[in-house]
Amino acid sequence: MDLLGSLDVADLASAFSRLPLFPLFDLGYFVVSLLYLRYEKGAVELSRSSPVASWACAMLYCFGSYILADLLLGGAPLDCFSNNGSILLATAVWYLTFFCPLNLFYKCVSFLPVKLVFVAMKEVVRGRKIAAGVHHAHHAYHHGWAVMVIIGFVKGSGVALMSNFEQLLRGVWKPETNELLHMTFPSKASLYGALLFTLQQTHWLPVSKVTLLFSFTLFMMVCKVFMTATHSHGSPFALVEGPLCSVLFGSAPPAAHEDPHQHHYEPSHHHPQHEPPAKSREELNEGTRKRKAKKAE
Amino acid sequence: MDLLGSLDVADLASAFSRLPLFPLFDLGYFVVSLLYLRYEKGAVELSRSSPVASWACAMLYCFGSYILADLLLGGAPLDCFSNNGSILLATAVWYLTFFCPLNLFYKCVSFLPVKLVFVAMKEVVRGRKIAAGVHHAHHAYHHGWAVMVIIGFVKGSGVALMSNFEQLLRGVWKPETNELLHMTFPSKASLYGALLFTLQQTHWLPVSKVTLLFSFTLFMMVCKVFMTATHSHGSPFALVEGPLCSVLFGSAPPAAHEDPHQHHYEPSHHHPQHEPPAKSREELNEGTRKRKAKKAE
Amino acid sequence: MDLLGSLDVADLASAFSRLPLFPLFDLGYFVVSLLYLRYEKGAVELSRSSPVASWACAMLYCFGSYILADLLLGGAPLDCFSNNGSILLATAVWYLTFFCPLNLFYKCVSFLPVKLVFVAMKEVVRGRKIAAGVHHAHHAYHHGWAVMVIIGFVKGSGVALMSNFEQLLRGVWKPETNELLHMTFPSKASLYGALLFTLQQTHWLPVSKVTLLFSFTLFMMVCKVFMTATHSHGSPFALVEGPLCSVLFGSAPPAAHEDPHQHHYEPSHHHPQHEPPAKSREELNEGTRKRKAKKAE
Repeated sequence: MDLLGSLDVADLASAFSRLPLFPLFDLGYFVVSLLYLRYEKGAVELSRSSPVASWACAMLYCFGSYILADLLLGGAPLDCFSNNGSILLATAVWYLTFFCPLNLFYKCVSFLPVKLVFVAMKEVVRGRKIAAGVHHAHHAYHHGWAVMVIIGFVKGSGVALMSNFEQLLRGVWKPETNELLHMTFPSKASLYGALLFTLQQTHWLPVSKVTLLFSFTLFMMVCKVFMTATHSHGSPFALVEGPLCSVLFGSAPPAAHEDPHQHHYEPSHHHPQHEPPAKSREELNEGTRKRKAKKAE
Repeated sequence: MDLLGSLDVADLASAFSRLPLFPLFDLGYFVVSLLYLRYEKGAVELSRSSPVASWACAMLYCFGSYILADLLLGGAPLDCFSNNGSILLATAVWYLTFFCPLNLFYKCVSFLPVKLVFVAMKEVVRGRKIAAGVHHAHHAYHHGWAVMVIIGFVKGSGVALMSNFEQLLRGVWKPETNELLHMTFPSKASLYGALLFTLQQTHWLPVSKVTLLFSFTLFMMVCKVFMTATHSHGSPFALVEGPLCSVLFGSAPPAAHEDPHQHHYEPSHHHPQHEPPAKSREELNEGTRKRKAKKAE
Repeated sequence: MDLLGSLDVADLASAFSRLPLFPLFDLGYFVVSLLYLRYEKGAVELSRSSPVASWACAMLYCFGSYILADLLLGGAPLDCFSNNGSILLATAVWYLTFFCPLNLFYKCVSFLPVKLVFVAMKEVVRGRKIAAGVHHAHHAYHHGWAVMVIIGFVKGSGVALMSNFEQLLRGVWKPETNELLHMTFPSKASLYGALLFTLQQTHWLPVSKVTLLFSFTLFMMVCKVFMTATHSHGSPFALVEGPLCSVLFGSAPPAAHEDPHQHHYEPSHHHPQHEPPAKSREELNEGTRKRKAKKAE
């Protein structure tokens, strides 16, 4: 009975790893990513005043991880733009998110139960991307541990790592914060995931890749769906990170949601209204979001 | 008679497409580009205080399109620097523009009739670059429509797309604007031209490449020479863009020369003197330019 | 006797050029580079609040020249991260510099006599890097003079050329200055060194490469050790640069240590406390440094 159970899980994990991402899961990824773009201050106005800049931002949100990983590995950053199906799908989602009559599309996908399904689908894509990134880097650098971890991390974090430059495209500049300075839960999870996949790839972690992918994706789906549903801000890593950091680096890391402004060592007279940093948006209160979006319309 | 006429145009277009760009037309491109660099606030002082930074900026103005296109296609951004003839010519034009005794060179090339000739020559190079960019991208990605359009656009727009970083090199930082947020006429024309050349390359536009190149170059030459000669600010695309944008994006695009500061969604306390954005310089009033340049001397 | 002497020098130069850099000289390079990172305002606090960002900065300080050169030549910027030995060594030095109990490591390496040894070792690595950069560029572009000089310059200057982006990683943004605007002695020396190595590589300079490398390294070691030991700010190039610049560019370059704020053409209301630019840190007074570092603890 126990044997059967373990067989079932292995079969399930193997079947899961063979699921095609395009078009269904990619759709989920694009919908959630562009929803976050729309939550950004000024994004709706931008889509009206300069659709080209808005489209370029949307592409960074959808394909940022591919662009950055290709750049770091010496490939062509435009490589992902040669995939016409993905580009068309992402463009369609962008158009519907910003220009659908009566805002029907936006209202549908930001309806919580619908959104939770898309959030879960996004995590499936994230897990697969990290695994593919580590595999790709391993192919290029057989013993390049650091390269594998970095590429996996970049593939999982996506546009967050280039948020300063994505904002610059929209005419916004917030040099006092970036994703490495104030890591959000998805980025931290991508970093730890990339570490695990690298250990697996180099045979230090005695599990099969499909099992690891399955478990990691399940963990991310549960966490993100729970966090989105409850507007929770706690990081499940805080329990481990606290003691570990105080041993390794002599101090606990700041809790993910302390006011990040207390860490600034630069006076920022040019940002008088102390707004929360852009990158904590993934955990913004749902209500605030809706109010903001309504004002923007 | 009609047949003869069409033959003549086809012959002319074909001969035109075989004209070598180096050194004559490249010279025109460099002269006009570096004239625009010199019009920039602080550019003359910069050439005195740090010639190395000034030279680096000049190279971005002359070769920005190649650098960006190579970067996006995974090539070596320094590739164009291996062409000693072009580099020497650009360096000579830079030196004459900024350091010629009595400002003789600058006075000659900014004399309107002379300048109009160079402006026309620059448009010949621009058309050829867009066509070459689309062709190159088509070679790398046979069905990569988006890649072809982007590379054509980048090759036509040149340094404008990296203006934020070019300004940073000169110690200037204007994050609230960039070329995608407020597209100038040359960039818009490059985008539409790249679209046309991509349609031609993929056989959706039933004209020969030489004819398209000839017509596009002619259109650009007429427009730019007319705009430079009359200090006109109207975009010939406004008539088409207005209705199209209001159908597609639910709003007309802002006229190219409304005060762009009204689109800012960020208070910019650190830019008290509301100056026009750097990228509208191509249409700056000729008189203002001369006065500015004189003050700078 | 004279023959013997010249033989000895040639032998010495040849033996010197075959010295392995890893691990001893690389250690010196990493120690001095990370010492300069620690001198930066806010670097110690950053290492506590976000070790990931601090590690990323440290890697830029240690491998910035490789990353930039690979990027410019179309290679993979992560290439150097595949060298596990170097990465581990740099990470160890970073950890010891910032997190060693009682600051023992920092106190040891910033003790002047010890530091002078490391400074001398860093110059050995710099010389070797410039020579390797020019050689590499020559291999890729046989007649690309400009490419050889640029790559040599980039390999010698390292992180200084990307200081704006390195600062951005730490949440600091100082657009009004960069290495090209206010070149420090090491950057100028790298530029002139790259010129010499390029002339040697293309057989215009009739000396052997090992002799040139030996003389250049010796010159740099003497200069930097002297400047570090005496807190001297004078550039040995000033004597030649002054007349040359006034002939070529019609004005003497500003002395390296005039207040660079007088060159700003942008009002900088958001930087009220006029601090010296980050990049003059290599010549900061030793005493000031120690006081700052003590306050930071």
